[in-house]
Amino acid sequence: MKCFVTGGAGFIGSHLTDALLKDGHSVVCADNFLIGKPENLAHLRNNNNFIFYETDLAEKANVNEIFKKEKFDYIFHLAANSDIRESAKNPEIEYKNTLLTTYNILECMKLYNVKRLFFSSTSAVYGEKITGPMGEISGPLEPISYYGSAKLSAEAFIHSFSHMNDFSSLVFRFPNVIGSRLTHGVVYDFIAKLKKDKQNLEILGDGTQVKPYLHVSDLINAISHLKNIEETGVVIYNIGVESKTSVTAIADIVCNEMGLKNVNYNYTGGNIGWKGDVPTFEYDLQKISTMGWSAKYTSDEAVRKTVKEVLTCKL
Amino acid sequence: MKCFVTGGAGFIGSHLTDALLKDGHSVVCADNFLIGKPENLAHLRNNNNFIFYETDLAEKANVNEIFKKEKFDYIFHLAANSDIRESAKNPEIEYKNTLLTTYNILECMKLYNVKRLFFSSTSAVYGEKITGPMGEISGPLEPISYYGSAKLSAEAFIHSFSHMNDFSSLVFRFPNVIGSRLTHGVVYDFIAKLKKDKQNLEILGDGTQVKPYLHVSDLINAISHLKNIEETGVVIYNIGVESKTSVTAIADIVCNEMGLKNVNYNYTGGNIGWKGDVPTFEYDLQKISTMGWSAKYTSDEAVRKTVKEVLTCKL
Repeated sequence: MKCFVTGGAGFIGSHLTDALLKDGHSVVCADNFLIGKPENLAHLRNNNNFIFYETDLAEKANVNEIFKKEKFDYIFHLAANSDIRESAKNPEIEYKNTLLTTYNILECMKLYNVKRLFFSSTSAVYGEKITGPMGEISGPLEPISYYGSAKLSAEAFIHSFSHMNDFSSLVFRFPNVIGSRLTHGVVYDFIAKLKKDKQNLEILGDGTQVKPYLHVSDLINAISHLKNIEETGVVIYNIGVESKTSVTAIADIVCNEMGLKNVNYNYTGGNIGWKGDVPTFEYDLQKISTMGWSAKYTSDEAVRKTVKEVLTCKL
Repeated sequence: MKCFVTGGAGFIGSHLTDALLKDGHSVVCADNFLIGKPENLAHLRNNNNFIFYETDLAEKANVNEIFKKEKFDYIFHLAANSDIRESAKNPEIEYKNTLLTTYNILECMKLYNVKRLFFSSTSAVYGEKITGPMGEISGPLEPISYYGSAKLSAEAFIHSFSHMNDFSSLVFRFPNVIGSRLTHGVVYDFIAKLKKDKQNLEILGDGTQVKPYLHVSDLINAISHLKNIEETGVVIYNIGVESKTSVTAIADIVCNEMGLKNVNYNYTGGNIGWKGDVPTFEYDLQKISTMGWSAKYTSDEAVRKTVKEVLTCKL
């Protein structure tokens, strides 16, 4: 089938593009290179099943142009701002790059009669009010970051567009996803900081923030496994691992893999990394597990594997 | 205090403006007159505590201009598309008039350091998946109309803006609200149709759609009662009446008040009025009732009172 991967030059989008091509599909990618990188797709330059557009999907005319030219079977909409810390300073980044891109995609799906959508949502839609493991129907959904709000808004429009136009939409609520081609986040930051200074490491918060980290290969495997849903409407899955890794444990793994000993950890204090950060959360993963999927790597293993991959620059 | 009522020339906005002025506040209104009407505010022309802007709040520059000029204490954001049936044909109406207006208001509140917000949300955020009475923390929230999606998106951004900028936000999820100055909806439609043809009445669906109808005077009373919340963050209330009225019962009341007998009801069939319509719902009203508020009029009484008001053109 002919797939459209938005944010295709990004960390996750480029891995998904590789997987779809490997499975024999043809892939059209779009990216604005704000976070995505040309080198993530460089190896596909001569692939006849691959087309790339450098464009801003927050402009409806650009989205329209691509849909007009290509005849898509399936949209994998991953384009978004993924740097929550950055958008905490400027909510408009989320409004445009995360929400408006989604809205434009939905309008074009309606206009060009494309019925299948995969959407990358996030644990951030849950906010911090839910006690105990968060299931897909848990409420209230009260995002505290602009990122979480934009993703919840995108989900909201996916519901009505799917209902009104008979789309089949698959939504995964991602946890922290890590692996090669990573562009930011705590694992990436620690490696960058320790490359500059091998003796001291600044750690945001008190290091006790503890979350599940999913390796990107597990995520891609889940998308491949579940993408052929047949039902009309929206199906939402939490996706993740049962285990979690604390920020201090990540620091330990990074130091260990870099062969560094006796590094001074300087904590900035407080139990969150920045305002809008949710310091800990736990998913109820029963729904996706009944579909026969589970992660291959634990959270700690995913962190260690990622550190190795980033250190060896394994694209 | 100095209040900003967006959508102030609308059905509900103009009633709220009247109430705030009566309570001694000064009021600035904005409206684009897409649905709102100048005559709803005509009686305030010479009121020194009242200022009006005819403007489109979906343009950020317009919102910015008003916030720059006025120094608000409290924003009552009611501007929105309120005609769900109309936007079912064109989702962009909701994206711009319901969601983008809200986003622009939130950005300006942040920029100009305004901390208090009232927001008019809707039962449509719940969609139709929740079984039993819907409480404020019920999930999943899966709106089936573009209107419901835009309102849920607005709520989502109210959560993060409130968290990040210490706003105190009060959100009411409105049911069907009716009363004088009504511009559309089933009560309005039936009166308009029966004025044209006193013998036949087309009824969308099979007439069994049954919902709670709240009289606007009860809604305004609830806003007055609860607007002085002190806590930071977002407080959401379902607002409504326990009783419900079916579409056929509304037809009966309208005929009765218009003195018409033996009108032929012609049902278009099916259990919904149009795609995106939720044919029935029931609120859990415990949260607002513990705040000492309840509606004065039952759903049937609200319908009858509204028919009388519309027939006598009581503004």
